[in-house]
Amino acid sequence: MSTTVSYRPADGQVAGAVEDSTPEQVAAVVTRAATAATATATASPAERAAWLGAVATALTDHAEELARLADTETGLGLVRLTGEVARAAAQLRFYASVGIEGSWLGVTVDGATDTSPRLVRVNQPLGPVAVFGASNFPFAFGVLGNDTASALAVGCPVVAKAHPAHVLLSVRLAELASDALAAAGAPDGAFGLVVGMDAGTALVCAPGISAVGFTGSQAGGLALWRLANERDIVIPVYAEMGTVNPAVMTAGARGRLEDVARGFVGSFTLGSGQFCTKPGMLLAPAGGDVADAVGRALVEAAPSPVMLTERIAASAAAGVERLVGAGAREVARTGGAGAGWSADAVVLAAPASALHPGSPLLEECFGPVAVVVEYDDPADRDRAIGALQGSLAGTVVTDGSGADPEAGALVARLARQVGRVTVDDWPTGVAWTWAQQHGGPWPATSAPAATSVGAAALGRWVRPVCFQSVPDALLPPAAREDNPWRVPRRVDGELR
Amino acid sequence: MSTTVSYRPADGQVAGAVEDSTPEQVAAVVTRAATAATATATASPAERAAWLGAVATALTDHAEELARLADTETGLGLVRLTGEVARAAAQLRFYASVGIEGSWLGVTVDGATDTSPRLVRVNQPLGPVAVFGASNFPFAFGVLGNDTASALAVGCPVVAKAHPAHVLLSVRLAELASDALAAAGAPDGAFGLVVGMDAGTALVCAPGISAVGFTGSQAGGLALWRLANERDIVIPVYAEMGTVNPAVMTAGARGRLEDVARGFVGSFTLGSGQFCTKPGMLLAPAGGDVADAVGRALVEAAPSPVMLTERIAASAAAGVERLVGAGAREVARTGGAGAGWSADAVVLAAPASALHPGSPLLEECFGPVAVVVEYDDPADRDRAIGALQGSLAGTVVTDGSGADPEAGALVARLARQVGRVTVDDWPTGVAWTWAQQHGGPWPATSAPAATSVGAAALGRWVRPVCFQSVPDALLPPAAREDNPWRVPRRVDGELR
Repeated sequence: MSTTVSYRPADGQVAGAVEDSTPEQVAAVVTRAATAATATATASPAERAAWLGAVATALTDHAEELARLADTETGLGLVRLTGEVARAAAQLRFYASVGIEGSWLGVTVDGATDTSPRLVRVNQPLGPVAVFGASNFPFAFGVLGNDTASALAVGCPVVAKAHPAHVLLSVRLAELASDALAAAGAPDGAFGLVVGMDAGTALVCAPGISAVGFTGSQAGGLALWRLANERDIVIPVYAEMGTVNPAVMTAGARGRLEDVARGFVGSFTLGSGQFCTKPGMLLAPAGGDVADAVGRALVEAAPSPVMLTERIAASAAAGVERLVGAGAREVARTGGAGAGWSADAVVLAAPASALHPGSPLLEECFGPVAVVVEYDDPADRDRAIGALQGSLAGTVVTDGSGADPEAGALVARLARQVGRVTVDDWPTGVAWTWAQQHGGPWPATSAPAATSVGAAALGRWVRPVCFQSVPDALLPPAAREDNPWRVPRRVDGELR
Repeated sequence: MSTTVSYRPADGQVAGAVEDSTPEQVAAVVTRAATAATATATASPAERAAWLGAVATALTDHAEELARLADTETGLGLVRLTGEVARAAAQLRFYASVGIEGSWLGVTVDGATDTSPRLVRVNQPLGPVAVFGASNFPFAFGVLGNDTASALAVGCPVVAKAHPAHVLLSVRLAELASDALAAAGAPDGAFGLVVGMDAGTALVCAPGISAVGFTGSQAGGLALWRLANERDIVIPVYAEMGTVNPAVMTAGARGRLEDVARGFVGSFTLGSGQFCTKPGMLLAPAGGDVADAVGRALVEAAPSPVMLTERIAASAAAGVERLVGAGAREVARTGGAGAGWSADAVVLAAPASALHPGSPLLEECFGPVAVVVEYDDPADRDRAIGALQGSLAGTVVTDGSGADPEAGALVARLARQVGRVTVDDWPTGVAWTWAQQHGGPWPATSAPAATSVGAAALGRWVRPVCFQSVPDALLPPAAREDNPWRVPRRVDGELR
């Protein structure tokens, strides 16, 4: 019997262990989810909202216990983790409300005409969703994070895989969720958990699973994507992976260099640099002292990062060496916690000419590491942007006047390459609102038209079905003439 | 220099030939499209509608010439083809109007709050789209069909591949479109054509191509899908392929057997059975004389089908043999055109027990061939439905009373397995309206959440971008406060 061992990043010691799910256990969890799928699909959005609300309440009722357990396993700190419990609870309620609003159902009715029959189109839940949460946000992107909340909101059962970086927390969250869902009347099987690497593989291959949500590394996300593409029935994999998120300074931004440097350091070292939205590169006009200013700001901030896992700590250190090997020079370094899985925060500098195809400078270095890349002129800058992979977010740093002459072209340029463009606003935070887009071109995500955060996240778990000449009484409730769920509809082409 | 040869299905003789595009020519066409992409993206929907309108006018102005040329190459008949030219023109105008309506832009604005920045989300065109049209609808699903029209409507340039079954027509349509687009002010490169199998492969692999639309066989669609998945930058492939579309008779429907049999024969032999929406299987209660009635209706209708290509004719005949080898018995056969690429229309019958995994009965037989499968009881019927692949359409054939006790459960069952459910209405026709869903679970399509026909077809060619704290003047026009394109918006969560 294999187990998943839990470690304490603070000192690298073992915190506990959980038995991995056997193939039989995985199959049983998937069967329960598949059995529940009819009941979760036919429940009304209001009923599902009650389920999600119960889970949210369970989180806030146990906030202190959960934050403590999470801190033991992640070292992210009680303040941040307590806040993240509240965020996860708020997200559950938000997705529940988006479910009730009902636009995601896309109800569209075309009355019969002389040449075409009556057609009614409505989105239907796909069925059981496998959720692979992230290491770096144990609550907001964990087993009860955005993926789980948005899937349940549209009526898809969820089978989550426990994250090895916080397996004890994953198990505890699953217990709380299962109890809360049962008490709120959700069908047995609406939520389940599996543990272990092999269990995760089995989950993606299980015929009963209809879609996959993933947040994590490119290697992990692409492995699941490939696995899903080899199934008899290929299923969608929404993998949010992340790459280097560029921040681009205009010439005018040099006028407020110290501010920019401090902001950049704060953003790339937040959460020990373990954000998929970390700005990993600052493209700056040459001839200023941008790299030095960023280096000074780092020394001043003096973070001493502790990483989520031993592997992440080692890979951040190796990443710095790889960047140096690719032509970057080290500008500044802080750290020195020493105990546990500490890493150094590092600022490097490189010329834009180093960004040639295949260079490690074009790859994400997960951790508190960033590169200042100096460009000679706008053409050089645009070549550098074009050399980068598509990414989740891109930032334009202007002179702050609101009329920087370079800003317009840069916003338009980045919009072709990223999922979110920010201006004079660091990209690290991701609000869970209606307009959010947390996604981006391949390989930042496997599905650039999708978002894993925000109201549109619900759209990942449904598929439209058109009902032609079907009597009203035989339609799904959302599509019926009397509109019992009071959802927005488009009738004969007009939104109502 | 290789060529694509055009044949006349009526007599199998050569109608002409077109030189295949060289790799250099493909690269040049893609470069022109990529160069045009900025101009097509920044044009307003009204400007793009003018371009599409000009193409539509060119089609109707040349309807007679085009229908004649198409008939030479496809043998589908002047009446049907003249109607299809009109349909293609109407589709171009429909997608243009959907583009102007603007819901596809998904404009969403969240004002700044104490805890979140101002976010504006708007869909942006992906860039150049490669379009692989169908053999069976040279206009409506051809180089100027649904894919091309919906892509241009959102501002994506199109590079179409000429279909080998109507290569002369493809070239002529491309000429007309290019001239009309230029005259209407569209940028050079907004539309291009390539010819030849290798050119098609090169197109999907070209870095300048951002997405692929395909209509055709499972083998062809999946080959392109695999190719796109092996690119450095993986791109979406919207392949509409098709499988067996089941029609399911209730016990009560036996009361109007002759009607049902005639309707079924009319539907599965329409266009020589060369519809992706052809109902290939009629699941009927055992003990009636359903198979015999369908056989009689076929003999009465007495079609003598001519197929689009020699290969399709041969493969329809081979398909019948494969079905017989799989345990089906031949009930009736008509045909006898003899000349050219004729095929027989065939009705077969099989017991539901023959639908075991791997059976050829579960695979689409493209052509005027259908199988009546008899089931013993509802459980047997549901097992048979479950044995089938996901499909584009599924039909429930009831007693016609509007209160058939079996209808409700069958509609719900088929909705889990198809993209469109029809009741007492044959599925062959596909209206291009707001509510249409022409898609279905894998492997009927490669992207079950997408549709290749109807207003939602535009959504395939865009990706959302969120603008965070971006000054209004730097936003794309559709997202600006003054809403110059007058598109529907969601502001602070409310549709306006």
